[in-house]
Amino acid sequence: MSRVCTNELIKKLGLLNTENMYLNDFLHTWDKTDQELSAIFTVADILEKMRKDNISPKVFDSGLGISLFRDNSTRTRFSFASACNLLGLEVQDLDEGKSQVAHGETVRETANMVSFMADIIGIRDDMYIGKGHTYMKEVADSVEAGHQEGVLEQRPTVVNLQCDVDHPTQSMSDMLHIINTFGGVEKLKGKKIAMTWAYSPSYGKPLSVPQGVIGLMTRFGMDVTLAHPEGYEVMPEVEEIARLNAASSGGSFSKTGSMSEAFEDADIVYPKSWAPFVAMEKRTDLYGQGDQDGINELEKELLAQNAEHKDWECTEELMAKTKNGKALYMHCLPADISGVSCDEGEVAASVFDRYRVPLYKEASYKPYIIAAMIFLSKFKNPADTFQSLLDKSNSRIR
Amino acid sequence: MSRVCTNELIKKLGLLNTENMYLNDFLHTWDKTDQELSAIFTVADILEKMRKDNISPKVFDSGLGISLFRDNSTRTRFSFASACNLLGLEVQDLDEGKSQVAHGETVRETANMVSFMADIIGIRDDMYIGKGHTYMKEVADSVEAGHQEGVLEQRPTVVNLQCDVDHPTQSMSDMLHIINTFGGVEKLKGKKIAMTWAYSPSYGKPLSVPQGVIGLMTRFGMDVTLAHPEGYEVMPEVEEIARLNAASSGGSFSKTGSMSEAFEDADIVYPKSWAPFVAMEKRTDLYGQGDQDGINELEKELLAQNAEHKDWECTEELMAKTKNGKALYMHCLPADISGVSCDEGEVAASVFDRYRVPLYKEASYKPYIIAAMIFLSKFKNPADTFQSLLDKSNSRIR
Amino acid sequence: MSRVCTNELIKKLGLLNTENMYLNDFLHTWDKTDQELSAIFTVADILEKMRKDNISPKVFDSGLGISLFRDNSTRTRFSFASACNLLGLEVQDLDEGKSQVAHGETVRETANMVSFMADIIGIRDDMYIGKGHTYMKEVADSVEAGHQEGVLEQRPTVVNLQCDVDHPTQSMSDMLHIINTFGGVEKLKGKKIAMTWAYSPSYGKPLSVPQGVIGLMTRFGMDVTLAHPEGYEVMPEVEEIARLNAASSGGSFSKTGSMSEAFEDADIVYPKSWAPFVAMEKRTDLYGQGDQDGINELEKELLAQNAEHKDWECTEELMAKTKNGKALYMHCLPADISGVSCDEGEVAASVFDRYRVPLYKEASYKPYIIAAMIFLSKFKNPADTFQSLLDKSNSRIR
Repeated sequence: MSRVCTNELIKKLGLLNTENMYLNDFLHTWDKTDQELSAIFTVADILEKMRKDNISPKVFDSGLGISLFRDNSTRTRFSFASACNLLGLEVQDLDEGKSQVAHGETVRETANMVSFMADIIGIRDDMYIGKGHTYMKEVADSVEAGHQEGVLEQRPTVVNLQCDVDHPTQSMSDMLHIINTFGGVEKLKGKKIAMTWAYSPSYGKPLSVPQGVIGLMTRFGMDVTLAHPEGYEVMPEVEEIARLNAASSGGSFSKTGSMSEAFEDADIVYPKSWAPFVAMEKRTDLYGQGDQDGINELEKELLAQNAEHKDWECTEELMAKTKNGKALYMHCLPADISGVSCDEGEVAASVFDRYRVPLYKEASYKPYIIAAMIFLSKFKNPADTFQSLLDKSNSRIR
Repeated sequence: MSRVCTNELIKKLGLLNTENMYLNDFLHTWDKTDQELSAIFTVADILEKMRKDNISPKVFDSGLGISLFRDNSTRTRFSFASACNLLGLEVQDLDEGKSQVAHGETVRETANMVSFMADIIGIRDDMYIGKGHTYMKEVADSVEAGHQEGVLEQRPTVVNLQCDVDHPTQSMSDMLHIINTFGGVEKLKGKKIAMTWAYSPSYGKPLSVPQGVIGLMTRFGMDVTLAHPEGYEVMPEVEEIARLNAASSGGSFSKTGSMSEAFEDADIVYPKSWAPFVAMEKRTDLYGQGDQDGINELEKELLAQNAEHKDWECTEELMAKTKNGKALYMHCLPADISGVSCDEGEVAASVFDRYRVPLYKEASYKPYIIAAMIFLSKFKNPADTFQSLLDKSNSRIR
Repeated sequence: MSRVCTNELIKKLGLLNTENMYLNDFLHTWDKTDQELSAIFTVADILEKMRKDNISPKVFDSGLGISLFRDNSTRTRFSFASACNLLGLEVQDLDEGKSQVAHGETVRETANMVSFMADIIGIRDDMYIGKGHTYMKEVADSVEAGHQEGVLEQRPTVVNLQCDVDHPTQSMSDMLHIINTFGGVEKLKGKKIAMTWAYSPSYGKPLSVPQGVIGLMTRFGMDVTLAHPEGYEVMPEVEEIARLNAASSGGSFSKTGSMSEAFEDADIVYPKSWAPFVAMEKRTDLYGQGDQDGINELEKELLAQNAEHKDWECTEELMAKTKNGKALYMHCLPADISGVSCDEGEVAASVFDRYRVPLYKEASYKPYIIAAMIFLSKFKNPADTFQSLLDKSNSRIR
């Protein structure tokens, strides 16, 4: 039964044009064609099904998956490690704390020096506006040049595990969750999704989650609403991408300053705190100048600004306004749950609790999405590769 | 020769009832039946023999072994890594320093988020009385629920790498050392083992070693004596377990306040420092209250209390009192060796030195014991699995 | 084509006597015979060719590669990890920060306790004169004894990843780069190589690079010149080794106090900063005494001493003096590049830039050199092992 299903998925994959993904990086979802995104979802599905059938999709006999996290991370770290391990790559942390990167080495040299046997480089660099994506691009260009110059036998590909602009492994996992919940990508046309700001007692949460969501969800014919209080604007260039996506997908992209309006009749709600874009730019500059007093002052201002919007909480009252009162509640986790992880936060405890299992399920797609990104950057004919894996059918557990 | 031997061990394993070990955790030895403990020893023996015969017992083609150490650890860390590696699992540290666990996430959420592709979770949490076991149970319950709810494809099982109550990987390694030294489990009836306190210039060593020893060694018909100065009592519920074990195994469990009495005619001695149970409870409370002054004061008191018992040292004089002066000296290592690692300590240098090789051998069983715990929690018919490994006979080193 | 080539290399390897490398450590290049060094280069070449042909040289189905770095390290860490991974070993860091090594355990005990399933131990310990090599020898002796005593089933071998005396993985990679650049080891007779000191604004760089270079390059019939300002002498015993090597290889070893003289007509130049040997001895003593004031004072003196020799920079003018103005410029990286990574440094930016690709290539050999050291210490008949790998031809990437 499930083998038949896997075969159908492989057939579907074979019809998609994934040529440009081969030996290429995954930095923004909007760099990719619709067929390419479809291929990611399809490969993620195949991998999940194979694993459930106890068939090992190990395609690497050796090779390193380098991880570089500029920020603490449990979930993304384990998702990346799980993806690498499933395919046969060993994770090696490039820890700037213990490495000489901190001692003024150029990015180009380090990127090449660690990559002699690396197949993949996963980077999370979401802290500073204008820096994360730039850094990833620099690493990708460095190893591309190294490969062209004959320094690197293979071309390691870069996977964006969260930058200042996009968070493709998150938004793609979110999207796969939506697809599976609503019964297929073809069911999404006309569905209303509300990406809304929510209050959090902490500050400075990255913008890449809402940006990733509006930059991706607008491609499926859905009505996407972005809601936030004044002053919490996201990057204008990403809003422009969302507008263009909506126009060509037959959906819509709108903005509102009211959480309640966004929730009205929504099929999906994604209430989540983020920092004001302008403030994050300012913080980046202050860090650059080493102005700690300025940073402290800014933090105080931002917390005060946040506190003016404590009413932006995903309550039962708001949920009742959604389609049949039963919208799918989403979050990238961890959430600030009122009365549980903080006094007042992004979501009421009873709402969170009712959606706990779907939220965990949403998160469970990430290792497969990352593995799919790796897979499609390494195999020119992915459908053939899967077919041969299926023919061999090595057990994951004996 | 050795192949025949492995076949006999597999046959023996096939006769043992290990049904309840499948997809189950290993938290305390006293949760397990005699047959289940026998299965652990048997699997450890099989794994050791296969490795010696250069046959790889790799049963996982991929999968993560999560390690969570709340305390520094070289030996246990390497034992766990060795066990996982031998079976084909990749170790991924859940380091609370670098992860968001420290930032108030609930245990349930984190346990699920890291476990999407985890087969095993090894935890060491021995610092605070009343906390370690509770935490392990919570993790186990969380992933069990996650598996039931469809969040986790597989059920990761939890291995206790040392909690506040028991230290099963240590006591089982110790026991395997005893079995091999005395020529079989059937030779142990009536043997006298002395688990005694010993002086150490440091304080606060966990109670789980002596508790693990009296909770396990009383199951083999041995005469188990627990000796310590007044004030160094272990947890009363574990003493009760020891008493019940002794009653049903036909051995005995007794207590004494004299090291010399405990050594009298002993076949095995296990002199080792530990902290007073009551003091450890008090310390846990002080930590909970963040009372650093109170903690410092307590440490001073405890060191002074320890210093009153410097005569509790395993000397040549004491060793001479044991059975033919040749009792097996045991320790979980590292030991406080008088004149070597400290001025005055748990054991005289000449005694330690004479037993150095057996002590190292004792430690060498731990990776196999851990691997056996993993193996038996993952294979419903372990004897069949081993037989098929033996039939294939893949080399560990080519 | 390339398969034929690999076969020839395997044939060549089969003619070399590598008997004494089996189960033996790699600590200094001068402990090894010419045939043994030739075997390292040959195995490195075979491994590189097999990987390029997508043939996996995985020879371990399981096993640990322990890494112990007493100093920060990105490149060596990744080189070691790459080598272990290519052959099938999993790296496990012995981090003295998180382990009990720091708490006074003896080297012997720790070395045995972590090695129950370890096949290799890679150590970098280059900080203190008179300590690094001694420590590696102690570890090697400990695991040798452990193996003899029956504690360790297998004998883990020690690879020197940089000590106070030699840096064999670096000098062997450098040498392989020279061999490949000049078209074979037989082309090196009479070539002139200048190992010269260069100015750096930092201080205390290890002496093991220049020592490793003069200790190795003198074995190939080359004319090796060591140049440095007065006061920057290297260890006299290594100079003595260089003199003896040169005498028996038909080359020469000379010293000069002039960078310009060393560059005159050189085929190869290796300008690189290092600390004065005598000062490093003094620093080791000061550390031993815990004399932080003395250390600070010494650092100030050394930086001032360095600053007197800012003219020791590898400029275009100096490069013009070399053979046809086209000597091969070498460096172990990272280099102090004037105007790039510092104001005034070891090398002019235009020189470094012109040699950037060859420098990266030079570094790219290190993972293969390390893998070759591991391989030759683990296989009694390495040519046979390679032949059987080639017969199987498992793909590295499916």
